Amino acid sequence: MLLCERCHQQHEEDSKYWRCPCGGALLLHVDETRFPSQEALQSRPSSLWRYKEALPLRDGTIPVSLGEGLTPLVPLPWKSGRVFFKLDYLCPTGSYKDRGVAYEVTRLKELGISSIVEDSSGNAGAAMAAYAARAGIHCQIFVPEYTSAGKCVQIESYGAELVRVPGSREDTTRAAEQAASHTYYASHNWSPYFVHGIKTYAFEIWEQLQCTAPHKIIVPAGQGSLVLGCYLAFRHLLQSKIISRFPQIIAVQAKNCAPLYEAFIQRKEEPVQIEKQETIAEGISSALPVRGREVLAAIRKTGGEMLAVDEEEIKRGFYDLAKAGLYVEPTSAVVAAALAKLEGQGKLLTSETTVAFLSGSGLKATDKILHLK
Amino acid sequence: MLLCERCHQQHEEDSKYWRCPCGGALLLHVDETRFPSQEALQSRPSSLWRYKEALPLRDGTIPVSLGEGLTPLVPLPWKSGRVFFKLDYLCPTGSYKDRGVAYEVTRLKELGISSIVEDSSGNAGAAMAAYAARAGIHCQIFVPEYTSAGKCVQIESYGAELVRVPGSREDTTRAAEQAASHTYYASHNWSPYFVHGIKTYAFEIWEQLQCTAPHKIIVPAGQGSLVLGCYLAFRHLLQSKIISRFPQIIAVQAKNCAPLYEAFIQRKEEPVQIEKQETIAEGISSALPVRGREVLAAIRKTGGEMLAVDEEEIKRGFYDLAKAGLYVEPTSAVVAAALAKLEGQGKLLTSETTVAFLSGSGLKATDKILHLK
Repeated sequence: MLLCERCHQQHEEDSKYWRCPCGGALLLHVDETRFPSQEALQSRPSSLWRYKEALPLRDGTIPVSLGEGLTPLVPLPWKSGRVFFKLDYLCPTGSYKDRGVAYEVTRLKELGISSIVEDSSGNAGAAMAAYAARAGIHCQIFVPEYTSAGKCVQIESYGAELVRVPGSREDTTRAAEQAASHTYYASHNWSPYFVHGIKTYAFEIWEQLQCTAPHKIIVPAGQGSLVLGCYLAFRHLLQSKIISRFPQIIAVQAKNCAPLYEAFIQRKEEPVQIEKQETIAEGISSALPVRGREVLAAIRKTGGEMLAVDEEEIKRGFYDLAKAGLYVEPTSAVVAAALAKLEGQGKLLTSETTVAFLSGSGLKATDKILHLK
Repeated sequence: MLLCERCHQQHEEDSKYWRCPCGGALLLHVDETRFPSQEALQSRPSSLWRYKEALPLRDGTIPVSLGEGLTPLVPLPWKSGRVFFKLDYLCPTGSYKDRGVAYEVTRLKELGISSIVEDSSGNAGAAMAAYAARAGIHCQIFVPEYTSAGKCVQIESYGAELVRVPGSREDTTRAAEQAASHTYYASHNWSPYFVHGIKTYAFEIWEQLQCTAPHKIIVPAGQGSLVLGCYLAFRHLLQSKIISRFPQIIAVQAKNCAPLYEAFIQRKEEPVQIEKQETIAEGISSALPVRGREVLAAIRKTGGEMLAVDEEEIKRGFYDLAKAGLYVEPTSAVVAAALAKLEGQGKLLTSETTVAFLSGSGLKATDKILHLK
């Protein structure tokens, strides 16, 4: 069943709704009391499909897979302590989006959907194009006209139809929604499935830490799918009586586009309307997160917090990571900027386990990195 | 001990020789009768360090690691059959070179080497820069002046000193050797350690195929480290009485630079002198493979063969892979071109297990891919 997070109505999956008729975001209901035992996990595949109890499929479905998941968790000395870095930029297309898209496309194939439309300025478009190719689903990706040649050529190489839209990012979304009236709007932000694929990164962190929950998990937040995924995963482990407390979710936004951060510090329940300014962390430059209310609630439920970092801090974060051997896109560097902030506030404790999530590959952002200095 | 493959002399590791005084290539001697049991492997780390019996270190050494290894092995329908693709482009810096460099840098750190020089036109330079950064070793990377901005910025971001050398690739090597007279020449081609790190990909293939050897393993060959690594790994498994036969190694060169292929079909023991022409498979454009004799012998000992593919075949191979969701650099596409050749020759049998090795990420080659069409 698909549940609307706004009006709480339920819909059959066969409705093929990507959004509730009320305008609210839908989420697939998953039984959170079922999870594989540690013994069972030992013989499971080295991919996110090892958590199949938490990723419901119809009988006999073979996942649409490129080997996504089980990315390295690398402990590194960091400032005065030690941090575990989750290298999710080593997913098949170069970003964590592969997790969500792998599950989403698998479910869309089950529903018999043969043609999809997605809009993206980067990572999600590449992920959708790759998994649609793997699944044999026709795929149109709408991108803003200003999208870099490198991103476009990756999407087109997978065989997707690329549509460049003049104007703003929002104009691109409108054009995609319109085109999708004839096919299916597979928008990862609205998808009821996407975030369930994303949550697997948090299962992996738990498993890679010898089946314990860390104290803090630091993630970048634009639409907030990493926050929601983390929350869903640890709620699942709590419901399955595998852990006894949530880790704190520390979500990081760029100061230049921080509707969630502003709401968080103003103790509001909905994202705040902001005037978006340019940021090198373009992957989290979302002025209107469609699940913002749920994201804010999730952070609060875990006793977590939000941080906002400026452009200089992000640049320093990029070089701090690179000089430790981690080459990420500037969006991911907000996490290193947050580590520096936490260190300054005395919140990076050696007595705690801290995990920092790295979302996208530096190899995708050559043009941006060339202009960082 | 380091053994010279030409004059068969032994040298102490503390000699810090990177090449035998006779001019021959050195290789570290490893005891091939020791290998972890399948039971032991279940609790080993998710990285190439799970095969520690085959990667000797001094007592107490902590590996210089970025989580390299255990990359996905993905079965895909391919032409009339099915092929397992080893996605080694998902190593930390975007190429399989990380395996060799991780082991090499770990050993150099053990030897107390604090400053190294490497020359590279691409992947090895990035790998060396990243692992030197991780290890706290000062690192100079010499590149030909024509090296792309994207590769240069990756190397410099890790904090390595980049030296651009006018002239040919060979001029770059000469400049690096000269500079190394004051420090240590960490050339991955000459290193006695590098190929031992590389061999771990073949252990993983064996383990990911439920601890069986496949029938065929298809790899690109320039200097031939993937051939030697594969041969060393399966010889190790044979010596340890874990398998009973070699898989066939199928090594692929670009027609425009095929000194090993020419030697193979002419039944010669040494690489043939060729006039090198430009190829989009630049990662294997090596006219003078320094371990060429050993590479040729290894392929023959496994009952394998060599193939040469032309530029059009490589381009088609690139798109065949991308349309299956695999975005690789053109060098890796020679493997798909070889699959097409084998299919045409009736050698891609459904009764056999075939593994195709994908060495480098397409995200590293945007400039090349933009000009493929």
